[in-house]
Amino acid sequence: MSSLVKELNLDRVVVVLVSTRNPLNIGAAARAMSNFGFGELRLVNPYEPSFREARSAVGAAELLKRAKQYSSVAEAVADCTLVVGTTAGRDREPQLELRPLEEAGRKIRGATMKGRAAILFGSEKRGLSNDDFTNCHWLMRIPTRDEHSSMNLGQAVAVCLYELIRDCKTVVVRETQNPATAEQVELLSEVLFETLEASGYVKPKTEKATNAKLRHLVRRLKLSADDAVSLLGMLRKMQWKVKSK
Amino acid sequence: MSSLVKELNLDRVVVVLVSTRNPLNIGAAARAMSNFGFGELRLVNPYEPSFREARSAVGAAELLKRAKQYSSVAEAVADCTLVVGTTAGRDREPQLELRPLEEAGRKIRGATMKGRAAILFGSEKRGLSNDDFTNCHWLMRIPTRDEHSSMNLGQAVAVCLYELIRDCKTVVVRETQNPATAEQVELLSEVLFETLEASGYVKPKTEKATNAKLRHLVRRLKLSADDAVSLLGMLRKMQWKVKSK
Repeated sequence: MSSLVKELNLDRVVVVLVSTRNPLNIGAAARAMSNFGFGELRLVNPYEPSFREARSAVGAAELLKRAKQYSSVAEAVADCTLVVGTTAGRDREPQLELRPLEEAGRKIRGATMKGRAAILFGSEKRGLSNDDFTNCHWLMRIPTRDEHSSMNLGQAVAVCLYELIRDCKTVVVRETQNPATAEQVELLSEVLFETLEASGYVKPKTEKATNAKLRHLVRRLKLSADDAVSLLGMLRKMQWKVKSK
Repeated sequence: MSSLVKELNLDRVVVVLVSTRNPLNIGAAARAMSNFGFGELRLVNPYEPSFREARSAVGAAELLKRAKQYSSVAEAVADCTLVVGTTAGRDREPQLELRPLEEAGRKIRGATMKGRAAILFGSEKRGLSNDDFTNCHWLMRIPTRDEHSSMNLGQAVAVCLYELIRDCKTVVVRETQNPATAEQVELLSEVLFETLEASGYVKPKTEKATNAKLRHLVRRLKLSADDAVSLLGMLRKMQWKVKSK
């Protein structure tokens, strides 16, 4: 997408909070979402189940009540066609492209013209984990100082959402392409790994690293939904052959 | 200032929190300031004197310790040449120009090339008061939804500061003009009011409104420091004459 993307489909932006510890931060995220017109909040393993009463969610109680809970990132982003991770560091995950916030905003706006876009925020203490990163297509970074890069979660959400709406005048729905959902990509990654494992490609010592490498690779392909279905069919055929030997 | 102002003098931005009630919000403001490289925090009548230990100021304890306290907005912005108020409303103060955040950011960046620029944030419940507004040259507004415009204080500070640093590559000091400080403008407003009062211009029933009108008018003049000194001299002369009658 070029820098000319001035439209955003608000309903297709999904804010995903992963392993948030402080319910006040969940409330603050909900409030910023409501301030800027976003409505879809999803939570992966929140630390404190009582978050729905968070006082800081002034004016966003409804949004918070509607928020869905998931036990894994993969489930939370299953229906999304773009998954973007946020990070305070400059080199947290060298396998993923790291985009400045403005560029990221344009890309996400563009993506909402085709499907749902998820933005992942990690826990207050550790941010997103390496496992979380394997669900992401790329990462975005708020331009904080290197000497003090770690932002408060609610403030980080506010700044990212502001950047999304900052420069766009219209909010519309337009269907153009049909990219693969995260669920399809996830399934493809799994079947690819299993097939390679059954083929003896995966070494026990490096199994975890190999899995992460594959997951990143599959996400870099930016598959269409049709291609994902085709590839999955091919892989399943191979897997059947390999396992029947 | 044109849209080409890509430079910001970080040291000349002053964040002023007016009558903040929750010390956690002061801490959150300090943290966002530190994240984005700002250092000058000033507090006008904070509700809770224990704010300096605010836990939310992760990484910004020093900045919080250095923060100065004032008993009036006028004192807090005395050395500033531009004073900008923040508001969630679209029509809080019809006498003051209301700028969108992006335009405001450019103007503030430009102003830091000449002197200190203060950004005022009001209390959590009420925002800035009409009296606070009489200290401002103009207002800026974060583009929140009309249906839910009121932001959390810490998040509002984070978004405003992000907008200031977002689009500028360099941070430099450059001396060009020499605008009047808020202290000079304040003094001028007072002497003008006293002189008009002594002249019978001020009616008891509308005294407060007249004073506010004058304060806004003087700030719209955008005086240079030299002109402020000249005008003050003239007014004092008139005042002396009027009172000696």
